[in-house]
Amino acid sequence: MSQQLEAEDALRLDPSVQREFGPLINIIEAKKTLFTIIMRVNLKVMLLCLILAVMTITVGVYMRCVTFPFGPGELQLRRSNEDSPTKNSLRVEATSACHLQDIECSINQEYNIHCKRDEIDNEVYVPFSFLHQYFDVNGALSTTSVGGSSVADVARFDWMHSNAKINLPKGKYDPHGVFMYFENYNVEVRDRVKCISAAEGVPVSIQWQKSGYFYPTQIAQFALSHYSKNLTEAAPRVHVLEDADASQMEWHIPKASNMSRIWHPKFNTNVIQFETAIGYSSAIFINPRQTLDLLLSVDLLLVTNSSSLMVKVLNRETKLKYNLHYLPADLLLSVQDTNIYYGMGRLSLNRWRHLTRDLHIDVQKAIVFGAKHSPIKVRRTDLEILSISFLGIGFYDNITLSTSKHLAHFYDAAEWLVHNQDPQTGGWTNPVRRSLNGFAELKPGWISAMGQGHAISVLARAYWHSGGDERYLEAAVAALQPYKILSRDGGVLAQFMDKYYWYEEYPTSPPSFVLNGFVYSLLGLYDLNNTAPSRVACEASKLFTQGMHSLKQMLLLYDTGSGTTYDLRHLSLGVAPNLARWDYHATHVNQLLLLATIDGDPLITQTAERWKGYMFGKRAKHN
Amino acid sequence: MSQQLEAEDALRLDPSVQREFGPLINIIEAKKTLFTIIMRVNLKVMLLCLILAVMTITVGVYMRCVTFPFGPGELQLRRSNEDSPTKNSLRVEATSACHLQDIECSINQEYNIHCKRDEIDNEVYVPFSFLHQYFDVNGALSTTSVGGSSVADVARFDWMHSNAKINLPKGKYDPHGVFMYFENYNVEVRDRVKCISAAEGVPVSIQWQKSGYFYPTQIAQFALSHYSKNLTEAAPRVHVLEDADASQMEWHIPKASNMSRIWHPKFNTNVIQFETAIGYSSAIFINPRQTLDLLLSVDLLLVTNSSSLMVKVLNRETKLKYNLHYLPADLLLSVQDTNIYYGMGRLSLNRWRHLTRDLHIDVQKAIVFGAKHSPIKVRRTDLEILSISFLGIGFYDNITLSTSKHLAHFYDAAEWLVHNQDPQTGGWTNPVRRSLNGFAELKPGWISAMGQGHAISVLARAYWHSGGDERYLEAAVAALQPYKILSRDGGVLAQFMDKYYWYEEYPTSPPSFVLNGFVYSLLGLYDLNNTAPSRVACEASKLFTQGMHSLKQMLLLYDTGSGTTYDLRHLSLGVAPNLARWDYHATHVNQLLLLATIDGDPLITQTAERWKGYMFGKRAKHN
Repeated sequence: MSQQLEAEDALRLDPSVQREFGPLINIIEAKKTLFTIIMRVNLKVMLLCLILAVMTITVGVYMRCVTFPFGPGELQLRRSNEDSPTKNSLRVEATSACHLQDIECSINQEYNIHCKRDEIDNEVYVPFSFLHQYFDVNGALSTTSVGGSSVADVARFDWMHSNAKINLPKGKYDPHGVFMYFENYNVEVRDRVKCISAAEGVPVSIQWQKSGYFYPTQIAQFALSHYSKNLTEAAPRVHVLEDADASQMEWHIPKASNMSRIWHPKFNTNVIQFETAIGYSSAIFINPRQTLDLLLSVDLLLVTNSSSLMVKVLNRETKLKYNLHYLPADLLLSVQDTNIYYGMGRLSLNRWRHLTRDLHIDVQKAIVFGAKHSPIKVRRTDLEILSISFLGIGFYDNITLSTSKHLAHFYDAAEWLVHNQDPQTGGWTNPVRRSLNGFAELKPGWISAMGQGHAISVLARAYWHSGGDERYLEAAVAALQPYKILSRDGGVLAQFMDKYYWYEEYPTSPPSFVLNGFVYSLLGLYDLNNTAPSRVACEASKLFTQGMHSLKQMLLLYDTGSGTTYDLRHLSLGVAPNLARWDYHATHVNQLLLLATIDGDPLITQTAERWKGYMFGKRAKHN
Repeated sequence: MSQQLEAEDALRLDPSVQREFGPLINIIEAKKTLFTIIMRVNLKVMLLCLILAVMTITVGVYMRCVTFPFGPGELQLRRSNEDSPTKNSLRVEATSACHLQDIECSINQEYNIHCKRDEIDNEVYVPFSFLHQYFDVNGALSTTSVGGSSVADVARFDWMHSNAKINLPKGKYDPHGVFMYFENYNVEVRDRVKCISAAEGVPVSIQWQKSGYFYPTQIAQFALSHYSKNLTEAAPRVHVLEDADASQMEWHIPKASNMSRIWHPKFNTNVIQFETAIGYSSAIFINPRQTLDLLLSVDLLLVTNSSSLMVKVLNRETKLKYNLHYLPADLLLSVQDTNIYYGMGRLSLNRWRHLTRDLHIDVQKAIVFGAKHSPIKVRRTDLEILSISFLGIGFYDNITLSTSKHLAHFYDAAEWLVHNQDPQTGGWTNPVRRSLNGFAELKPGWISAMGQGHAISVLARAYWHSGGDERYLEAAVAALQPYKILSRDGGVLAQFMDKYYWYEEYPTSPPSFVLNGFVYSLLGLYDLNNTAPSRVACEASKLFTQGMHSLKQMLLLYDTGSGTTYDLRHLSLGVAPNLARWDYHATHVNQLLLLATIDGDPLITQTAERWKGYMFGKRAKHN
């Protein structure tokens, strides 16, 4: 007896053992109870009991330990492990586990991993953690609730060859409509966006240069995403707080400061004039106590250097208050504790500016910029606008708060493109070095066909949406020039095998032939061709036709039979193919699916379908 | 008790169950025995025994069922499964198996497979049978003997990404030496070889036409393999049975038949003249009773249609006797029961022929040809030559039996090439249709750059080995012509992107750009360039240089980042890449490794190394 108890205690020592072998312990306990009874009752009866006990235990343990090898489905044992409280209390299938043995698996005679072997059906089981790394496939455990009255969770393993997403076009591509599936893009949220410039209203990139720079491709994507969101999202909620006419707020006006609503003859509307004493305590202000509607827009003219717009925002979660200062200074972003400074540029002095700010983005980017270690993440829903105030001397009008202001962002970017195009080349130059592995470094000043194409897509939409503002059209047409100039001469044009013309996302030497950037450059041409008056459309049309011809001839160069390459550097440099990660592969598929709506060539549809299949583990046949 | 016995009988019904649950059955039997004793002995003692039995059983079954979860390596239980006689009686690792549960695995949301899950380390195990099919990887169970005094077998699973073999070159490629690694080729053994023609001494293919045809590429490979074997194998054992001079046999000469050794003034040697009555019983014969040395060669001149050489061969395993008849008839191969007829052609009448026959091949091919269902496989070691006989009227000399006769085969093929070249085009035409999926069918008469290259490799070696037989050189030089003529004009020349010249294994329209055939076509050019006198070498040199240039520019087109494509039909036809199966991929690697010994361009070496890596699961990086 003591021996048995010891064994039992030993089992009880480790809770994990107990969890795992709960049923067995129960069996042992049942035996112990039986034995106590035996001491008191007739021996013969006990004997019978004992025999029954032996049988019960034997059959019980036997049943627990094995699955009957009667073939799949014929007899399946299930047990609920309610009595063994594992961390996620899943209902488990009865294990055929005891057939399984550990077996070493030699991988290509290079290294070993631990596998399991089922001797009965001679199957070897390979751990997924190895497969994930070896084949670059994905998988995740998930649980589903099943059953009616007694709901139980069933674990399942989801093998997903690729995690990337396909976006099926909703119809024929409309050059005035949504740009691809860019309504899903949130450019300003990206880590590689430092902040939105208050001087320009466009994102500042830190991807390739930490100090920050304007990256035309990113600015155009910012514009296209907001243009697309404007078409797909519900109309925003807009609160006009103060327009000096119909909507007026009760402003707090400290002593020695003043404000007045005056007639602006040029605008033919009332505006507010203010003049305050020095120091934040002298600012005039309102307390909108607004949440969620964090898009602030205001028409603003500041007269002196020390004038500013200030917005106080509360993080209701952390109770921290942030002061967002918008100043007429040549400053991008500066942070001092909870004081955040965005510069609108000295040139904004004594000029009316329409300022559109996403206060959530402005706070979040400042926190990231100011943080020494891992910055906290601020949820949009946690923010509350405590006050909006003006300091110094100036004018303002039309203060609104809204859930979004997509078109304002779009036009900010379109304006940036109009004002920052190189008048000589028609290009938007990238002011940073760019290194592509194996290629000579691109020196600051390079032009990207993707940037040009994206910009043209923006400008074509701005021309159309604005009802024909010629400035946008002129910029878009001028942007075609680099398409006709070889990379070595400052353009974006390359040639494959001296035969097919290609527009280079990166104008490397030798050419790199990046696929996705090329297709974006084509979409720009398509957009312009289908938006511009015919007198200027023909140039875009010619370049588009030339590019589509190259695409069809060269598309299969990117097909590896189980995925795609990102570019053709292997052909240019004689190195290993630069395989596209699933994200980029999905972009290739999405682009082809979109092109298929405007070009009926079955090559495009068929290739898109095959490439889609690769994301689900399909492969081209071998001979 | 009856219940228990029933359970036991039920278990005994199925032998597989009994094999698997042997130990458990033993436990049940032990219990039964115990019970019988109980009937006769003191109950108290019995009770004690029973308690012990319960404990033993419980602990025993428990130990069998679990591994203690003390973390890996800390406590590992091993048991020998000597008591459970599984088919391969392996020593197994104690299982951590009972942690494992069955879990459904959803593959790309398309279908489900059964996996195992280890809750403790949250690992999911995937069955290899699925991986084999999904990823086209290979694996096999193997056992290794370990331990010193008590040797035990340990099971291991060998994951081999590819089963194909790499042949590392032994040194710089020698155009007069071994051709690649063709010493490993056994062309005549292949299923797609119907037999070796007795008229020509070269293989007859049935790959693309069941009636059989001469396939120049195969004939050249036959030659190159024997040429290479001649250089790599030990010298053969040769028995000169009869040369009418130093070696003479005692011939059995039936009544009304006769033979005599006579002087042949032209050959300046004795030969044997024979004349027999009609019917096989009249044939003159010897009984060499030879095994293993199954290469028969003889100089032979038959005067009448009904004359023949006959060899009787015994299969010592099946006791079947085969009569191999070699006749001066226009017949390839005919089989009637155990009589096998090979025709030497009517043109062989009244001409001296040097006949070289592999009797094992001749028997085996006849069995395959004559078999209605699955033919039996004859082992070389099972055959014994019972008799060699001559019938009719004729002459013979130099009967030898040897283990091999590689050079005779080589020269038979070289002669075939000399006599079967199209004098107009210099090509060896393929007399069959050839369909490549997606391309227009090649009509009979097409020429293959691979065939041309292989043939040139044969002829260059024949020219060199024969000490300068000009016939071989002339044929080789003439064979260059199709390299300069476009496929559509009957040649093998194609151009990639109007830029790079390519020699086509299959002169399809549009071009197919088969890689391995192209490299073989280059090796022919290299061989000729390095063998021919300079006056004729320059042409081959020019074509070789042109081809190597194309190869270097186009090589990476075949690189998928995890393997290679067999051709470039995806570019020509706009379809899925035709991936090279591992065999062909290994050929690509072997060819590059060989080219690297004659061309120092690092592109070749680096690509070969990377492609070799693909066979071990290495992949190019993604971006």
